[in-house]
Amino acid sequence: MARRAGPLVGIIMGSSSDGRVMAAAAEALDGFGVAHEDQIVSAHRTPSRLAEYARHAEEAGVRVIIAGAGGAAHLPGMIASNTLIPVIGVPIAAGASGARAAAPPRLAALGGLDALLSMSEMPTGSPVACVGINKAANAALYALKILAVESPALRKRLASHRLAQHRAVVRESERMRRSGVRAHSRLRKAR
Amino acid sequence: MARRAGPLVGIIMGSSSDGRVMAAAAEALDGFGVAHEDQIVSAHRTPSRLAEYARHAEEAGVRVIIAGAGGAAHLPGMIASNTLIPVIGVPIAAGASGARAAAPPRLAALGGLDALLSMSEMPTGSPVACVGINKAANAALYALKILAVESPALRKRLASHRLAQHRAVVRESERMRRSGVRAHSRLRKAR
Amino acid sequence: MARRAGPLVGIIMGSSSDGRVMAAAAEALDGFGVAHEDQIVSAHRTPSRLAEYARHAEEAGVRVIIAGAGGAAHLPGMIASNTLIPVIGVPIAAGASGARAAAPPRLAALGGLDALLSMSEMPTGSPVACVGINKAANAALYALKILAVESPALRKRLASHRLAQHRAVVRESERMRRSGVRAHSRLRKAR
Amino acid sequence: MARRAGPLVGIIMGSSSDGRVMAAAAEALDGFGVAHEDQIVSAHRTPSRLAEYARHAEEAGVRVIIAGAGGAAHLPGMIASNTLIPVIGVPIAAGASGARAAAPPRLAALGGLDALLSMSEMPTGSPVACVGINKAANAALYALKILAVESPALRKRLASHRLAQHRAVVRESERMRRSGVRAHSRLRKAR
Amino acid sequence: MARRAGPLVGIIMGSSSDGRVMAAAAEALDGFGVAHEDQIVSAHRTPSRLAEYARHAEEAGVRVIIAGAGGAAHLPGMIASNTLIPVIGVPIAAGASGARAAAPPRLAALGGLDALLSMSEMPTGSPVACVGINKAANAALYALKILAVESPALRKRLASHRLAQHRAVVRESERMRRSGVRAHSRLRKAR
Amino acid sequence: MARRAGPLVGIIMGSSSDGRVMAAAAEALDGFGVAHEDQIVSAHRTPSRLAEYARHAEEAGVRVIIAGAGGAAHLPGMIASNTLIPVIGVPIAAGASGARAAAPPRLAALGGLDALLSMSEMPTGSPVACVGINKAANAALYALKILAVESPALRKRLASHRLAQHRAVVRESERMRRSGVRAHSRLRKAR
Amino acid sequence: MARRAGPLVGIIMGSSSDGRVMAAAAEALDGFGVAHEDQIVSAHRTPSRLAEYARHAEEAGVRVIIAGAGGAAHLPGMIASNTLIPVIGVPIAAGASGARAAAPPRLAALGGLDALLSMSEMPTGSPVACVGINKAANAALYALKILAVESPALRKRLASHRLAQHRAVVRESERMRRSGVRAHSRLRKAR
Amino acid sequence: MARRAGPLVGIIMGSSSDGRVMAAAAEALDGFGVAHEDQIVSAHRTPSRLAEYARHAEEAGVRVIIAGAGGAAHLPGMIASNTLIPVIGVPIAAGASGARAAAPPRLAALGGLDALLSMSEMPTGSPVACVGINKAANAALYALKILAVESPALRKRLASHRLAQHRAVVRESERMRRSGVRAHSRLRKAR
Repeated sequence: MARRAGPLVGIIMGSSSDGRVMAAAAEALDGFGVAHEDQIVSAHRTPSRLAEYARHAEEAGVRVIIAGAGGAAHLPGMIASNTLIPVIGVPIAAGASGARAAAPPRLAALGGLDALLSMSEMPTGSPVACVGINKAANAALYALKILAVESPALRKRLASHRLAQHRAVVRESERMRRSGVRAHSRLRKAR
Repeated sequence: MARRAGPLVGIIMGSSSDGRVMAAAAEALDGFGVAHEDQIVSAHRTPSRLAEYARHAEEAGVRVIIAGAGGAAHLPGMIASNTLIPVIGVPIAAGASGARAAAPPRLAALGGLDALLSMSEMPTGSPVACVGINKAANAALYALKILAVESPALRKRLASHRLAQHRAVVRESERMRRSGVRAHSRLRKAR
Repeated sequence: MARRAGPLVGIIMGSSSDGRVMAAAAEALDGFGVAHEDQIVSAHRTPSRLAEYARHAEEAGVRVIIAGAGGAAHLPGMIASNTLIPVIGVPIAAGASGARAAAPPRLAALGGLDALLSMSEMPTGSPVACVGINKAANAALYALKILAVESPALRKRLASHRLAQHRAVVRESERMRRSGVRAHSRLRKAR
Repeated sequence: MARRAGPLVGIIMGSSSDGRVMAAAAEALDGFGVAHEDQIVSAHRTPSRLAEYARHAEEAGVRVIIAGAGGAAHLPGMIASNTLIPVIGVPIAAGASGARAAAPPRLAALGGLDALLSMSEMPTGSPVACVGINKAANAALYALKILAVESPALRKRLASHRLAQHRAVVRESERMRRSGVRAHSRLRKAR
Repeated sequence: MARRAGPLVGIIMGSSSDGRVMAAAAEALDGFGVAHEDQIVSAHRTPSRLAEYARHAEEAGVRVIIAGAGGAAHLPGMIASNTLIPVIGVPIAAGASGARAAAPPRLAALGGLDALLSMSEMPTGSPVACVGINKAANAALYALKILAVESPALRKRLASHRLAQHRAVVRESERMRRSGVRAHSRLRKAR
Repeated sequence: MARRAGPLVGIIMGSSSDGRVMAAAAEALDGFGVAHEDQIVSAHRTPSRLAEYARHAEEAGVRVIIAGAGGAAHLPGMIASNTLIPVIGVPIAAGASGARAAAPPRLAALGGLDALLSMSEMPTGSPVACVGINKAANAALYALKILAVESPALRKRLASHRLAQHRAVVRESERMRRSGVRAHSRLRKAR
Repeated sequence: MARRAGPLVGIIMGSSSDGRVMAAAAEALDGFGVAHEDQIVSAHRTPSRLAEYARHAEEAGVRVIIAGAGGAAHLPGMIASNTLIPVIGVPIAAGASGARAAAPPRLAALGGLDALLSMSEMPTGSPVACVGINKAANAALYALKILAVESPALRKRLASHRLAQHRAVVRESERMRRSGVRAHSRLRKAR
Repeated sequence: MARRAGPLVGIIMGSSSDGRVMAAAAEALDGFGVAHEDQIVSAHRTPSRLAEYARHAEEAGVRVIIAGAGGAAHLPGMIASNTLIPVIGVPIAAGASGARAAAPPRLAALGGLDALLSMSEMPTGSPVACVGINKAANAALYALKILAVESPALRKRLASHRLAQHRAVVRESERMRRSGVRAHSRLRKAR
C-alpha cells in the first residue's frame, strides 16, 4: 500500500443528517493520517448514484468503503452489490428524515435495530460487514485494520494506539482503585 | 382521474393527538395540490363511525385513505374491512391518550412496533399496506403514486419532485465532499 | 382501466426460493382474472436489473408491483426508488439462500421481522407499503384494490368476493355454535 | 347469579383455525358446568357482525366474553368497543389463515407477540384484559373468577379446584424428591 | 351489587413510585363514585403480606383487584394465586426503585415489555388479565365493567360515559375536518 | 464446608414438565458428588409452599437454591424474597403447562425471553442471579463455584474439570485443524 | 468467614463511564461494612488484564466478583472463564464509549438488552449469573447473600435489613391507604 | 499478495458443534482456491488460547480471521482485542452446547439475535465487523473482498463469480416469467 494523494477510504451516508454520527469515522481516520472522501449517496433518493459512486470509488483507488444509514438502511448493501471493494456498514439509530418538504416528528423508534438487521442480514453472495449501532469510530478502526493487512507502517501506528489505550485504562483503573468507585464517579461527573 | 372539487384522499386518525404526526401527510398532499379531507375516527371510542366513514368516503369519491393510529392501532384495519378503497396505514409511536378524564403518564413504550405489527399482520382477505413508524409523509407520497396510476399529469409532477430530490442530494453531497463530513456536520448543527 | 393483453401486476421476488410464498399472490390474482408477470430480480445479485425492471414494467403498462423478499429485503425499496409505480412489499420469513455454491444451514432466525422493518422503515420520499409477513395473498388483494380505484367492474368482483367471504364465516360460525368449539375443532382436524 | 339456560360466557374467535387453541377455554368451562356459546366473529371478514354479536350477547345474558385472535388480532378490542360486557383477550400464536382461495405457507412468525400487543395496548377508554399467548384455559378460569364475584357456589367450586391443584403439585413434588429429578424426568418421558 | 361503605376495588402497587401511574386508576374510579382502597404490597420486600392482603381484600368485600408493578412485576400474579378475586394487572414501564439505601440511575430500559410478559404469561391455573403498559385508567374501566355485570345502575353510567366519549370525538373530528389537520394540530399545540 | 449427609443444593422447579431441563443441573452436581434435593414448588399453584420451602431449605442446611421456571417464571424471585440463601434462576423456554384438565396447544412462543426478563429484572432489594435460557447445567456449575468459596477440595475438583475441558477443546481443535472443518463436520454428523 | 483487611468483593467494570451505575454496588456493600476493591478491567482494551485480574483477585482473597459492562459486555464472562470465584454480571444500558479520540453521539440504543443477553447466554461450562439491567445494588446484595452462606453474622445483618425494608413498605402503604394514591402521589412529587 | 503455502484465512469457532454452520465458509474459500486453517478456540473453555491463537495467526501470515460463535458469542470480540488482523464475526443461532457431561435440551431460543448483538455492539476501539446470522458463506466472501484489495487476480475471479451469479438469476427469472411463479414453485419443490 503505497502512500498516495487520493482517498484510501470512502465515507458515505444516506442523508446529511447522518453526518453527526459519521463524523466520528472521519475523526478517527484523520487521527491516523489516512485520507478519506466523504459523500452523501442516497440509495432511495439517488438510486442511479449507487453504480456511479461504486465506479468512482474504484477509479479513485478507494480501498474500503464505510457506509452509514438508518431505518431501512439499504445503502451499504446496495453499494456492496455494485463493487468488490469491502463495505463496512454503520447502522444509525433514530435517523432524521432528509426530506425538506415534509418533516414528521423526529421520535426515536426502533433504536437502530432496524438498520442493524437490514445491513447484516444480506443474502448469501453480497456481504456487508457491520459494526455496532452508531459506532462510526469502530468502522474507521476496522477500515484501518483492513488497510494494515498490507501496510506494516499502519500496523505499527495501530499497535501504538492500542498500547496507549491499554495504558490509559490501567491509569484510570488505578485512580479508581485508590479512591473507590463512588468518589471516582462523583469526580467524573464534576469534571 | 378528472380534476374535481371533492377530496381524493381521506386522512383519518384515531385521536386528535395523532394530528402532530399526520399533519405531515396533509402537508405533502398540499404540496402536490391534491385535495384531502381530515377526520378523527376512533375505532374504539366511535365504533359505529367505522362503517359510516367508509360509506361517506365512497360517496365523496375518496380514492385512497391514509389512516394513522398508535398502540393497538385498529383503525386502518377496521376501515379496510369496511370498504374497497385502498387503505395506507401509518403506525404512530408513543401515542398520547385522547381521553380527558384520566391522563396516565405519557411515557414512550414500545416505539411504535406495536402499531406496526397491528397494522401489517392483517389476516388474509383484509389487507392494509403500511409505511414506516410515524412516516405520514411517505403515506402521502404512496397515495400520490396510487393516484398517478391513472393520471399522467400527477405522474409528471411526481417525476419532477423526484428529480429535484435527486439534485438536492447531489448538491449537498458535493458540499460535504469539499468540506469533509466533520466541518459539514458542525455547520449543519450551527444552522 | 381497459382490459388489455399485457400484465397489470408485476410480481417480483429476490430469489427463486421465495416462490413458495409468492405463489399465493399469483393464485389470488388468477382468481380475479388479472394478468400478471412473475420474475426474479435480486437487488444484490443483479443490481443493474433494478432500473431495467422498473423501465420494463413502466413500458409494459404494469400498474402495481408486488415485491417479496426476505432478510435484508432491499428489493421492494430499491424498485420503489426506480419507478413511480406503487410497490407493495411482502416480507418473507426464514428465506433460504438462492446461492448454489455455498449452502448454509437453513435455520429460521428472526421470523421475518428483519424483512418487515427493512421494507417499512423507508426514508421519507421513497415509500413502500407493506403487508404482513408471508402475506402474499394480501398483497394481491391490495393490488386489486388499487386497480379497482378506476375499475367499477373489478370493484364489483371484489365486493362479491367479500360477500362470499362474509357468508362463509357466518356458515362456519353457525356450525361451531351448534356443535361447540371442542367438537368443531376435532372435526376440523379429522378432515 | 341465578342458574339459567342461556350461556354465561361467549367464546368467540377470529377464524375457525383458532378453534384448536380456544377449545381449551370451552373444556375448562365445561369442567365447571358453566354454559357457553362458541362462535366465529371475524373483525375483518364480517365487520358488521361485531355490533350484531355484541347486541346478541347482551340480549342472551352473556356475562363475560372470551375472544381469541392471532396476528393483527382486532377482534377482542372491537367487541369491547361495542359492549359493556367485559372481554378477555386470548392472543394466538402463528394463526393459520381462514381464507380458502389463497393459502400462504403457514410459518410461525412473531410467536404471538403481535397479537399480545394488539390486544393489550388498547387506548384509554376501551379496555381489553388479556391473558398469555395461547392461554385459553386461563381465560376461562378468569371468566369463572368474574362470575364468582357474585356466586358463592362457583367460588366454592373454584376453591376446591385450587386445593386439588395444590395437592397434585405436592404429591408430584414428593415423588420427585424421592426419585430425584433425573429419574423422575425419564419416567415422565416414558409415560 | 348493593351500595356499601367498604371498598369495591382494591388498588395495589409494588412500590410507592408506581403511584404516579396508578393514580389514574383511582381517578377513573372516583369519576364513577366507586369506592377503592389503595395500598403498597411488595411481592418481594413484603412477601408475607401477599396472603395477608388477599385475606384482607376478601374480608373487606373487595370485588376486583387492580395491581400495578414494573420490571419483574410479580405482584399481580402472586396476589392472583392467593385469592379468587379477579386481578387486573397494569404493567409499568421504567419503574424507579423503591429502595432507599441504594439508588441506581433511573434509566428506562425495556419499555415495560418485561412487566407485560411477566404478568400475561402466567401458568395455566392462575390467570391474571392485563391491560396495556401504564394503562391504569383502562384497568379501572375494566374493573367497572366487571362490577357492572351485576349492577344495572353502573352499566347505565358507563353507557353515558361511552356516549359522551363518542360525542367528544365527533365534535373534535368536525373541528379538524373544517380546519384541516395542519391548522388543527398547530392550535392544539398552542393550547 | 464440612461434608454432610443433607443436601447442599436445593433444585426446585415450577412444574414437573420443567424436569426435562432441570435434570441437567442434577447431572452436573452428581458429577461432582454434591448432594441435592429436587422438588416442585409452584409459585402459583402452591403459594403457601414458598415460605414453607424457604424454611425447609434453611433448616436442611441448603446453601444454594437453583430454581427453574418458564413463562411468568415467578418462582426464583418469590423464593429469593423468602430466604437469605442465594437463588440461581434458570429461565425455561416454551414451558408446557402443568395443569391437566385444560391442555392448550404447546407452541413455543417467546423463546424463554419472558422468563429471562421476569427473573433478572427483580426490584432492588431482592436479587435473583440468573443464567442463560435452559442452561440448567450452568446453574449447577455456578452453585459449585459458590460452594467452592469456602471449600478448597471442591475448588480443586472444579479446577481439574476446567483443565479437562480445556484439553478436550484443544484435542478437538487439533482434529479439525488437520481434517478441515468440512470433513470434521461431516464426521461429527455421522457419529 | 473471618473478618480480614483485604477486600471480600471485587467490583470491576469495562469503562470508567460505567462507574455512575456501579457506584450503587459499592454503596450497598459499604452499608454492610463489607470491604471491596473497585477497578476498571476492559475485556477489549486491556485483554491481558483479564487473566492478571483473575489471579490478583484470587491472591487477594476476593470471594465474589461483581462485573458491570454495557453493549457487547464481554467482561463478566471473560473473568468468569479465568477464575473459579463466582462472578455476578450487571448489564449496563446505554453505556457511553470510554475512548477519547472518537466520541460518537451517545444515544441509548438497545436498552441494555444486548448486555443482558451477552452475559446470561454463556456456554455450558462457564456460568455468569446476572442481575437486572443497571441493578448494581442488587448485585451487591447477591454478593452479600453468597458471603452470608458461611457467615452467621452477615446473615443476621441481612435479616435486619430485610425486616427494616418490610417495615418501611408497611408504613408507606399505611400512609397511602389513608390519603389515597392520588394525594400520596402528589405529595411524593412535591417532596 | 503473493501466492503462498500458509493459510490466508483463519476460520475459528467456539465449539465443534458450530462446524455445521462454519463449513460453508470453508467451502466458499475452497471454491476460490484460498488456503485457510480451521480451529476451535473457545473464549470460555480455553481463555489462554485467545492470545495464543492471535499470535499464531500473526506468525502464520493469516490476513483475515473469520470467527463464528453462538449465544454469548465472545470469541470474535476477544480475538479482535488480541490482534490487528481484521476479524469477521458470524453470529450462530441456536448453538448446541459443546460440554459433554451435562447436555441440556437443545431448544432454539433467541434465533441468534443474542450472538449478533454480542458481536456487533463492541466498544469503541475494538471493532468486529459481522455478517448475518449463520451467514458463514458471506463471511468468506467478505474475507475474499478484503484479500482482493491488494490482489488483482482474486478481484478478477470475484468479478467472474459475480457475473455467473447475475446470469444464473437472469436465467432462472426467465424460466419463472414463462411458466409463472405457481408452476415454477411446484417444479422447484418436485426437484
